[in-house]
Amino acid sequence: MTGVFITLEGPEGAGKSTNRDYLAERLRNAGVDVLLTREPGGTPLAERIRELLLTPSDEAMCSDTELLLMFAARAQHLAEVIRPALARGAVVLCDRFTDATYAYQGGGRGLDVARIAALEQFVQGELRPDLTLIFDLPIEVGLARAAARGRLDRFEQEGQGFFEAVRSTYLNRARAEPARYRLVDAAQSLQQVQRALDELVPLMLERARG
Amino acid sequence: MTGVFITLEGPEGAGKSTNRDYLAERLRNAGVDVLLTREPGGTPLAERIRELLLTPSDEAMCSDTELLLMFAARAQHLAEVIRPALARGAVVLCDRFTDATYAYQGGGRGLDVARIAALEQFVQGELRPDLTLIFDLPIEVGLARAAARGRLDRFEQEGQGFFEAVRSTYLNRARAEPARYRLVDAAQSLQQVQRALDELVPLMLERARG
Repeated sequence: MTGVFITLEGPEGAGKSTNRDYLAERLRNAGVDVLLTREPGGTPLAERIRELLLTPSDEAMCSDTELLLMFAARAQHLAEVIRPALARGAVVLCDRFTDATYAYQGGGRGLDVARIAALEQFVQGELRPDLTLIFDLPIEVGLARAAARGRLDRFEQEGQGFFEAVRSTYLNRARAEPARYRLVDAAQSLQQVQRALDELVPLMLERARG
Repeated sequence: MTGVFITLEGPEGAGKSTNRDYLAERLRNAGVDVLLTREPGGTPLAERIRELLLTPSDEAMCSDTELLLMFAARAQHLAEVIRPALARGAVVLCDRFTDATYAYQGGGRGLDVARIAALEQFVQGELRPDLTLIFDLPIEVGLARAAARGRLDRFEQEGQGFFEAVRSTYLNRARAEPARYRLVDAAQSLQQVQRALDELVPLMLERARG
């Protein structure tokens, strides 16, 4: 038995966690074993690495350090949480995964994509998400929602150009591999978004019972 | 102008820091710009990663996470401290570097050496130490000295077999590349060790002035 690995991607303020909880409820009501988790983080140690990554600091973090910390947290999360859940046949709903590394470190920071791909292979081997939902949102809307939540983290403090590159990286990845990705228009009302998600539930159930 | 990159390796209790300070004094007296540092650590952020690595915890750290954290700290240390010091022509005396990763993660934990070499290349490019002093010590002596210092860190809590593999990895590396390595018998008296170091000072000065 192998489970289904579903990741939710998109900027802050796109409604990823609200909709992750909504999807989990729909799947659980259908009798499916669901595991909710997030990145960076998902284990106590990986959450401590998350703190290093997100907390603004006087010391500039060099881009390789950021990338290696992301994958260090990911290796722990995979070994302790994701792989065991998939092995018991669960549906894993993960708020951000390696697509975020391509979007934020690759697109946003301009890191060489080949370097990201090398670490992806190093840490994940052949494991990739079965399905990735990209919650897409105009940049201004996401920034306004993130600002309304209060203190900005180290990434949220970046400028407009950074977030444009993040968004276009997500969109390009979705375009390049349509079988794995589904775009969700996160600028719609929550009700409309959830109607779009409802349409994806049968696909998820089919995979979970495959 | 490029500086000289000298690393000091060996187990806890081998006298690396005492002798690093001794060498620094000798070199400074000869008018050389010396930078003292250590790994894992050497910058505030890298020292926070060090804490994650050394503090015993209930959550088992998976071996890839340990390896990626080591190189995350190293990338930061290289960018912020080591490369700038070498660029201004300093002699860098660093307490542990990538040889320790080969010895502890490769030898001790049994990690695939090719995976370590891949990250070494990823983070360091062509940079390698110019000279590496290995402070060699029978395992029992090192363990007794470490225990006498008080609470053991996450590595010091390992068993005899781990430290035997660490020691033999250091010795094998020294044997395979005699031009870069110098073995120092750290079981001798401090006075004898420092006499051995005195003999290496002209070599260091020559390199520093080269």
